[in-house]
Amino acid sequence: MVLLFFLVYDHFDDKPLGERIPSEENDMVFFVDIQTHEPTTEQVDLIRDTILEKGMPAVIIGIGGGSLMDIAKATSLMVCNEGSSTLYQGLNLVKNPGVYAIGVPTISGTGAEVSMTAVLTGPEKKLGLKCDWTVLNQIVLDPDLIANVPTNQWFYTGMDNYIHCIESETGDFKNAYSKAFGDQSLKLCLEVFLGPEAGQTPENDEKLMIASMLGGLSLTYSEVGVCHALSYGLSYVFETRHGLANCICFNHLEDVYGEGVREFKQMVKRFKINIPQNLAKRWTEDEITAMAEIALPLEHMWRHAFGPNWKDKVNLEMIKDYYRRM
Amino acid sequence: MVLLFFLVYDHFDDKPLGERIPSEENDMVFFVDIQTHEPTTEQVDLIRDTILEKGMPAVIIGIGGGSLMDIAKATSLMVCNEGSSTLYQGLNLVKNPGVYAIGVPTISGTGAEVSMTAVLTGPEKKLGLKCDWTVLNQIVLDPDLIANVPTNQWFYTGMDNYIHCIESETGDFKNAYSKAFGDQSLKLCLEVFLGPEAGQTPENDEKLMIASMLGGLSLTYSEVGVCHALSYGLSYVFETRHGLANCICFNHLEDVYGEGVREFKQMVKRFKINIPQNLAKRWTEDEITAMAEIALPLEHMWRHAFGPNWKDKVNLEMIKDYYRRM
Repeated sequence: MVLLFFLVYDHFDDKPLGERIPSEENDMVFFVDIQTHEPTTEQVDLIRDTILEKGMPAVIIGIGGGSLMDIAKATSLMVCNEGSSTLYQGLNLVKNPGVYAIGVPTISGTGAEVSMTAVLTGPEKKLGLKCDWTVLNQIVLDPDLIANVPTNQWFYTGMDNYIHCIESETGDFKNAYSKAFGDQSLKLCLEVFLGPEAGQTPENDEKLMIASMLGGLSLTYSEVGVCHALSYGLSYVFETRHGLANCICFNHLEDVYGEGVREFKQMVKRFKINIPQNLAKRWTEDEITAMAEIALPLEHMWRHAFGPNWKDKVNLEMIKDYYRRM
Repeated sequence: MVLLFFLVYDHFDDKPLGERIPSEENDMVFFVDIQTHEPTTEQVDLIRDTILEKGMPAVIIGIGGGSLMDIAKATSLMVCNEGSSTLYQGLNLVKNPGVYAIGVPTISGTGAEVSMTAVLTGPEKKLGLKCDWTVLNQIVLDPDLIANVPTNQWFYTGMDNYIHCIESETGDFKNAYSKAFGDQSLKLCLEVFLGPEAGQTPENDEKLMIASMLGGLSLTYSEVGVCHALSYGLSYVFETRHGLANCICFNHLEDVYGEGVREFKQMVKRFKINIPQNLAKRWTEDEITAMAEIALPLEHMWRHAFGPNWKDKVNLEMIKDYYRRM
């Protein structure tokens, strides 16, 4: 029997945090490799099988970034649902609720700590296990845990949240609820990344953790948009990490997200962040097509961004043109 | 066996909403009198006994204002905990989790739809059943339900939320989390009650519902203060409804909540609301003492408002002086 099943980002394996995991007899600690790729269906299936060899856990605890949150959420569901996680990629396909799951974020901005999806890359698609049961039962927000995030990573992930809010507020599914959360998250983001006290300070770490949570709630009740659709394609084909992929895409979306992109560029400049450019000239036509073919089916994102008649505007060629800007 | 137990504010008994309750066989609808007094321990005990004669319900659904939310929360706990609800007035005294409870607010501002307390007036004290299990499992926010609230009631209850936020943000227990929620709630409140588009409109009804939720979360993670402590005393002795009692008290707290009170007075003026004044001259010394004796033991509120050394400032005489201003 397993009481607590700790899933921990393997970066912490030999770090103080890794040694602080309060596991006892009957608990299991499993360090997860997410440095080489984003979470996959295969990885979650394997973790599930490993747990179930020992027995059904009472609680699953994910400690790490957005990938770890998503793996913890997916694992919680998959110990209670038969077959491969590829069967459940989509909306409301999960049959049974999962076990009690707790998230402890060690980086802020993904929103995965509160979102109702667990994004996995499968052999055919990158798509979330999305249903009411996906939501974590509990989250622990401790700003000390994000104090030592390297600046680039801090920025890319913080921008993931910034982009969530801009996308959530720019589109058809916007509503009073998502806007209230998005507005406050953006306010905090601007304090952290552009205000007179901007930077990695204890006060800003608190603000960023809360901004991430509010941004995650904002997008949950609205929708992400063009940047996330493009970013999914980029990550799928080149395994670019989600935060960086978003920044690469958002940098060229001034025609869609005007002021949001201009502010983003100010923040990039403020922290002297390197956003890779001129990538498209090294991409083959096949690679560009492959990315666009991942992005196009994300209909709810295009629908949100361009309205009910989105199909008049959005097609494979148009999406390939977005990629050619990068 | 009872499947769904609907607790409905009796004002709706002969109204369209009362007729829309989707009860079926095995469900029970119970109209609750909260017009003549605030929720009492006796009332909750009686409702609990009435339900349990039929059997344990699967779900309890409260439809109404803050009182109904609190009665639904308390009833959900009391069907699973023996004896009178007076036994559980306080922090973490409840022994067992309650049944699944849903809240459907029909007025906005109380914060009771998200708070972790169910305030009841007992023979000895007005104090909440406060624990993690008190929180509703689900809330339904439908702005159409608050569209026809009479202006005075709309204002008093909206100000309950405004005061929650001012108190939450003014004091020792303030933190980044409560401030993020409080700031956004205040922003929405000012749009609804003071902005160029102020008033009871469909857009503002949406904003007010969300403001109430955010304010409730803000105070849950921080604390209320001087106004709520005084207001509890006033309600206990004179059965003044909570929203109005808050307004009566807050009106005279400019020395504690400066700018907040000045803004409050602008809102009062804007909507030509009558806040009763010159009450103290009709109160007896015994009545004033009785109110102060209810307010003084609310130590967490005084501690929040005046800091760790609050006992140097706050005493029965000082509190009686607050009441003498009214």
